[in-house]
Amino acid sequence: MERKALEEQFAYLMELVENRRYRELRDQLNEMNEVDIATFLEEELPEDRIVPVFRMLHKDLAVEVFANLSPDVQEHIIQLVTDKELSVIMDELYVDDAVDMLEELPAHLVKRVLQSANPETRKLVNEFLKYGEDSAGSIMTAEFVDVKEKMTVADAIGHIKKTAVDKETVYTCFVTDTARHLIGVVSLKNIFLADDDAKIGDIMETDVIAARTTDDQEQVAQLFSKYDLLSVPVVDAENRLVGIVTIDDAVDVMEEEATEDFERMAAMLPSEKPYLKTGVFELARKRIPWLLFLMLSATVSGLILAHYEEAIAFIPALVSFVPMLTGSGGNAGSQSATMVIRGIALGEIEFRDIGRVLFKEFRVALIAGVAMVVVNAVRMQIMYPGDYLVIAVVSFSLFVAIVIAKAIGGCLPLIAKALNLDPAIMASSLITTLVDAVTLLIYFSIALQVFQIQM
Amino acid sequence: MERKALEEQFAYLMELVENRRYRELRDQLNEMNEVDIATFLEEELPEDRIVPVFRMLHKDLAVEVFANLSPDVQEHIIQLVTDKELSVIMDELYVDDAVDMLEELPAHLVKRVLQSANPETRKLVNEFLKYGEDSAGSIMTAEFVDVKEKMTVADAIGHIKKTAVDKETVYTCFVTDTARHLIGVVSLKNIFLADDDAKIGDIMETDVIAARTTDDQEQVAQLFSKYDLLSVPVVDAENRLVGIVTIDDAVDVMEEEATEDFERMAAMLPSEKPYLKTGVFELARKRIPWLLFLMLSATVSGLILAHYEEAIAFIPALVSFVPMLTGSGGNAGSQSATMVIRGIALGEIEFRDIGRVLFKEFRVALIAGVAMVVVNAVRMQIMYPGDYLVIAVVSFSLFVAIVIAKAIGGCLPLIAKALNLDPAIMASSLITTLVDAVTLLIYFSIALQVFQIQM
Repeated sequence: MERKALEEQFAYLMELVENRRYRELRDQLNEMNEVDIATFLEEELPEDRIVPVFRMLHKDLAVEVFANLSPDVQEHIIQLVTDKELSVIMDELYVDDAVDMLEELPAHLVKRVLQSANPETRKLVNEFLKYGEDSAGSIMTAEFVDVKEKMTVADAIGHIKKTAVDKETVYTCFVTDTARHLIGVVSLKNIFLADDDAKIGDIMETDVIAARTTDDQEQVAQLFSKYDLLSVPVVDAENRLVGIVTIDDAVDVMEEEATEDFERMAAMLPSEKPYLKTGVFELARKRIPWLLFLMLSATVSGLILAHYEEAIAFIPALVSFVPMLTGSGGNAGSQSATMVIRGIALGEIEFRDIGRVLFKEFRVALIAGVAMVVVNAVRMQIMYPGDYLVIAVVSFSLFVAIVIAKAIGGCLPLIAKALNLDPAIMASSLITTLVDAVTLLIYFSIALQVFQIQM
Repeated sequence: MERKALEEQFAYLMELVENRRYRELRDQLNEMNEVDIATFLEEELPEDRIVPVFRMLHKDLAVEVFANLSPDVQEHIIQLVTDKELSVIMDELYVDDAVDMLEELPAHLVKRVLQSANPETRKLVNEFLKYGEDSAGSIMTAEFVDVKEKMTVADAIGHIKKTAVDKETVYTCFVTDTARHLIGVVSLKNIFLADDDAKIGDIMETDVIAARTTDDQEQVAQLFSKYDLLSVPVVDAENRLVGIVTIDDAVDVMEEEATEDFERMAAMLPSEKPYLKTGVFELARKRIPWLLFLMLSATVSGLILAHYEEAIAFIPALVSFVPMLTGSGGNAGSQSATMVIRGIALGEIEFRDIGRVLFKEFRVALIAGVAMVVVNAVRMQIMYPGDYLVIAVVSFSLFVAIVIAKAIGGCLPLIAKALNLDPAIMASSLITTLVDAVTLLIYFSIALQVFQIQM
């Protein structure tokens, strides 16, 4: 519905472009929000019209639109605008958006862009560019409101009003001492609720939730959802306030990290672009490494099957239960792994919980194992009535496979976490391959014993 | 690190509880934030101490803590507090938190709780309880700031200050006409930046991003991340403003929906509680249905294998490539399905993109297929030198399996979406089972032809 309305608006804008009704176009655009304008520039306009249309926007809106464009289009614009236009963009962009852009630009453009910024911005951007990828420092911005303990509420409101135009958010104010140490926070709502002559020091909260520049961005995002915050202050090793992370960036991090986990769990290298905008070669490049690794790992299961060729020749029916056994083991293991991986991602489970996880998975495996064995036995009794020995072998193998698969699925992500690997790589695909081999070994060892096949 | 600091604080609080140093305990608690206090009540205190400690909190803080408790503990408190205390809680809770609580309470307590609320709150809560689960209406709250077009900035600030204490957020103000129709929004930041005598009607934005009460909560959450909003107004069918959704609730929805997708994709029914707090029987109940369904589906692959028993007896080596072939097909299909499912969840892919998805997946499959065939052929040539016919059969089957698996993986989630099913159920487990069967059919049909085996 809403997407349709937007498409109609875009069609109308394109009509204005094609008929050169530029004044109307400008008026229309300047009424729209920055996100939709960015989508229009990127997805509707032919490339040679992007810069002329971009120039129709009011300065403030133009910068906001610029921050919402994809790196390719940002690069295209930078190449075509004058140095003066570029310096306006750079000085008006929030530091986090400038840093995001510079990280994607080719080196020669980075140089030109930085030269066009004023010295203060340049220094700040250079500092922020140094923080490690995926750290709190890399997603923070410098445009926050800081107030002093001694200020009155009236002073603080005056200060906020005067500086608001350059701040990314004014809704949380950070209280620092003369050495820039973070000593408290106060929400604008609480400032509003206090008397005009109340002191900031008396109404601020001192139990401050803060991150360090080196903290992982995922941990920072967890703070937002745990404590329902709109921004989190970021401090350096000496507890000096150097920046803030705002909720919109935290939301992006949450989505990115969840997408990464989905990709890793389905045996892909994580990508950063939306699916439809990612090229075929890049998609293939992200997918082939794990496909090859898992294909070669599956050789192990193949060798196990080959090893038991004689048992299969002796009782050919044995092979027909292989897909059910390996499939069930794999599914049972993936379930456990997925729960644990997600729990780790949300900060609910840590390595030290491994005992609890194992005990829980063991009991779940007992229940699930019994249910599966019963249903399977009934199914086999219907399809192969009277083959009690085969039914017994398959049932017992199934049960053992479920228990082992759930134990492997529960442990591996936690072990990965302890080794500082991403727990998500221990998900379905890898566990399935591992559980396949284990299940086959169990199944055929039991079958050999029961049917007393000599090898 | 932070978790450790919190644990030390909890240990200190417990010491105060045990030594009955209640005054110190009260002072300590009233300095803490509501989230940590809720964790302390829930996870550290013995049950019989919860209510006495809860009563030590200042009224405002107590209500905030209450909103952060789990349904079990909320129920425990409600059973033990007086009607008067209960009525304070009910009247101070934001409507969305009250509704969340009531949805989990047993019926007889709901009655008592509603009776203790004042008539206005009761009416509002009853209205909100009617909205469907997972709808925008079910997560919205009624405590928003509304201003009028004709107000000046100074009027508006006065109005906000006066009413702020009861509002969940004051940072976005909603402009309504006399019939409560939503006609604009204005951020508090923009109010701050305007002159005192500017009219709200002149500074408000009229290009309002709004949701309807019946919209799916996931769609509403997508609006937040797309447009970087702090709150979204919710309107009824006549465009009358009935509530707002705040970013903290949208973040919860995003996490919940991602968790649900993870669970569905790993063949589990979605659960709402954190892993470590979910009982063994409940975990088993969420996992067994899909395990059974997939186990029985795997019977099809078993029957296919049984059908080709003679081919296997004729060339026993054939069977040893089965795990590699089915595994590779399953992995290739899961990759595609996962990308598409995540794209749908983030609003990037719709059913009408199915042609683009298929074409993209086809080309990726060609590249991935060639890479896998080459590596596998080299591996087989090393392990079984000279067996060219077997290598050819396995290679060709592998290639076809990859192409078909990627097509199935790309399509099924979109078809599920079109049928109003959750695309996530079309993920790895189901696709693996389906692709297994298809791969086996392809493999053995080709082998029969090439080796001219009569059946």
